[in-house]
Amino acid sequence: MALYVMKFGGSSVGDTERMKRVAKRIVEKKEAGHRCVVVVSAMGDTTDDLIDQSKLLNSNPPAREMDMLLTTGEQISVALLSMAIHQQGHDAISFTGWQAGFRTEAVHSKARITDIQPERIDAALNDGKIVVVAGFQGMSEDGEITTFGRGGSDTTAVALAAAINADVCEIYTDVDGIYSTDPRIVKCARKLDEISYDEMLELANLGAAVLHPRAVEYAKHHKVRLVVRSSFNHNEGTVVKEETVMEQGVVVSGIAFDKNVARISILGVPDLPGVLAKVFTALADAGVNVDIIVQSGVQNGKADFSFTVTLTDTELAVQVINNIRGEVPYDNVTSETNLVKVSIVGAGMVSNPGVAAKMFEVISQQGVSIKMVSTSEIKTSCVVDSEKLHDIIRELHTAYGLDTAAQVVVGGPQDRR
Amino acid sequence: MALYVMKFGGSSVGDTERMKRVAKRIVEKKEAGHRCVVVVSAMGDTTDDLIDQSKLLNSNPPAREMDMLLTTGEQISVALLSMAIHQQGHDAISFTGWQAGFRTEAVHSKARITDIQPERIDAALNDGKIVVVAGFQGMSEDGEITTFGRGGSDTTAVALAAAINADVCEIYTDVDGIYSTDPRIVKCARKLDEISYDEMLELANLGAAVLHPRAVEYAKHHKVRLVVRSSFNHNEGTVVKEETVMEQGVVVSGIAFDKNVARISILGVPDLPGVLAKVFTALADAGVNVDIIVQSGVQNGKADFSFTVTLTDTELAVQVINNIRGEVPYDNVTSETNLVKVSIVGAGMVSNPGVAAKMFEVISQQGVSIKMVSTSEIKTSCVVDSEKLHDIIRELHTAYGLDTAAQVVVGGPQDRR
Repeated sequence: MALYVMKFGGSSVGDTERMKRVAKRIVEKKEAGHRCVVVVSAMGDTTDDLIDQSKLLNSNPPAREMDMLLTTGEQISVALLSMAIHQQGHDAISFTGWQAGFRTEAVHSKARITDIQPERIDAALNDGKIVVVAGFQGMSEDGEITTFGRGGSDTTAVALAAAINADVCEIYTDVDGIYSTDPRIVKCARKLDEISYDEMLELANLGAAVLHPRAVEYAKHHKVRLVVRSSFNHNEGTVVKEETVMEQGVVVSGIAFDKNVARISILGVPDLPGVLAKVFTALADAGVNVDIIVQSGVQNGKADFSFTVTLTDTELAVQVINNIRGEVPYDNVTSETNLVKVSIVGAGMVSNPGVAAKMFEVISQQGVSIKMVSTSEIKTSCVVDSEKLHDIIRELHTAYGLDTAAQVVVGGPQDRR
Repeated sequence: MALYVMKFGGSSVGDTERMKRVAKRIVEKKEAGHRCVVVVSAMGDTTDDLIDQSKLLNSNPPAREMDMLLTTGEQISVALLSMAIHQQGHDAISFTGWQAGFRTEAVHSKARITDIQPERIDAALNDGKIVVVAGFQGMSEDGEITTFGRGGSDTTAVALAAAINADVCEIYTDVDGIYSTDPRIVKCARKLDEISYDEMLELANLGAAVLHPRAVEYAKHHKVRLVVRSSFNHNEGTVVKEETVMEQGVVVSGIAFDKNVARISILGVPDLPGVLAKVFTALADAGVNVDIIVQSGVQNGKADFSFTVTLTDTELAVQVINNIRGEVPYDNVTSETNLVKVSIVGAGMVSNPGVAAKMFEVISQQGVSIKMVSTSEIKTSCVVDSEKLHDIIRELHTAYGLDTAAQVVVGGPQDRR
């Protein structure tokens, strides 16, 4: 008898028929003798619908009220899923985030968990009940309803698994597991049997939408055994854990890409101490997340440098740079979109020289120039024009020996929350 | 500067346009220098839609999970209404039932309020904020989300008005106030300027849907000054209070009717001590609410008696009677539907003999026989066939001098929650 945390995303419970199927899945686990805590997201488009409604009433709604609004989506899901489980003859009890004991910072829309007090969950499990917890939400010390931001339900599941010492945290989604790359682009993408936390973290951060990076971080930190699997079949899925066995000759585990990227360039910046700090402090203060930063060599006491931000932050970033012109004199600021960041990820890269060089070669063979490069011990990212993205991904997949004979069939839209 | 509780029902906030209008209404009050606590119901059909969804998943959903589900409706309303108020330049803060300090019995779907701890509301008012509270919901001592049942938002408003010592509790609805009878039936129904708690209580209990009986009871007990008025215009409305000035010659204030009634008759019941108690204890145990009870005279040691229940309880009541046949031998049990309970209500009835007699006469002039009668100090009810209901109401309205020259124009569907 094991203790399972099972997380189902919004598309897995997109309508009442899917909800019934999820209930059946949970009941199977329960009937196999296991204890089950279920974490569930808002149904299908509920969150987006609520956001649309809010926009009709307020062009810039207060974050506190958005949290109040959006948390109803998960509350509806847990109530309905509990009812569906009851209908199948098992006792279930639903909890909101605050009832489940999730305490967070007093921050709205992207609060971090400070503590989990799982007494009510423990009590319900001891009563033999299936526990259904609303993902993505908690409560601050002063009784305010907070949310964890997109992907927050993954974090709920992993944090809960750590708090109640679950044996496994299963993330159910609409794909069979983690793939070597997006199977919608590369038909012969391979499903990975296992992957390390670090690799998964890179993939998640690089736009592989199956698992949220914060959840992976949490899992790594608390050594929570994660399994990513399909809610539509009983295939094995991908295990995410500390150490993985490296397949012979496979240095790169996966290839990811992120289209949500823009490049900002600041030209002719005086090469004085503290200038860079001023720029990036101003950006941080405005809430702009900066990813890759590249500075060119200094000429005539002036330098050019570029950095990437998410697409939606493009205008804001340029505005921030304009605003600090008094403090940081520069010649010009430009922004560039229609870009993509392509990344190769693999724990074996560190001990295998030449892995990155092969990537540059493949990209240049496509006649595409590399605009920016960023590396870590287990990944190399290149920012390039998005036009030839699919060709690049396919060629990289082949070049790193990741192709399988089998063709992958992919289901519906991916769970993003 | 006065402290107002303003309650808006589901149809008043049925869509985002109406929501904006309600926000404007609240902002007007605030800008006139008053402090405002707003209670709001779920938008339009939200509650019914949620109930429909639950039925697809469970034919008999647990009450606890229904409360979990339905309370999201009001939570969505308060969040959106707060956003709409912000958009109009005023600071607003929304609270769920538990955040607003509503403590209730540990009962689901029809919990009673045990205590209100309005500290957070007081603090927000002191900060100059407009406070928006989710109607219909609270929390039990053990942290369970509970609801007050249909009409519960009225109760929220009145109880809150009592707890924070509000000067007035305004119930905004889609009619101009309390009418002498349903203006959809009697075109020349009159809007009452004022009415006593007791009269309102009778009218509310008798099916006049504008105010929920429990809320009126609460208002009477705590002497909360109630005003029922339209959310669509600025007309005066009807004041509900302790003592009202009786208009010259007007003994009956209002005429109500209730179609949600069935008659159960038990024939040939042995006239032994305790038999009636057994019957009605069994019904109470099954949760059947009995209204009028009539027993005929005893013949040969056996009696017939009849009672009324709500339509939906008809089958259940008959089943309960069948089940106790072992303890209470009787000859036969029958049920009758297509009935209506017509009632006249007026504080002046007690000191004016002959008021009831006139009612019986008007009904008999329509060729309709009276099946049951029930009286209190301020009302007389008759159960009759529903066929001639409209004629009876119109004739009673004229007979008691309630007709006005003006014709009433009635808006959309009435708020029931």
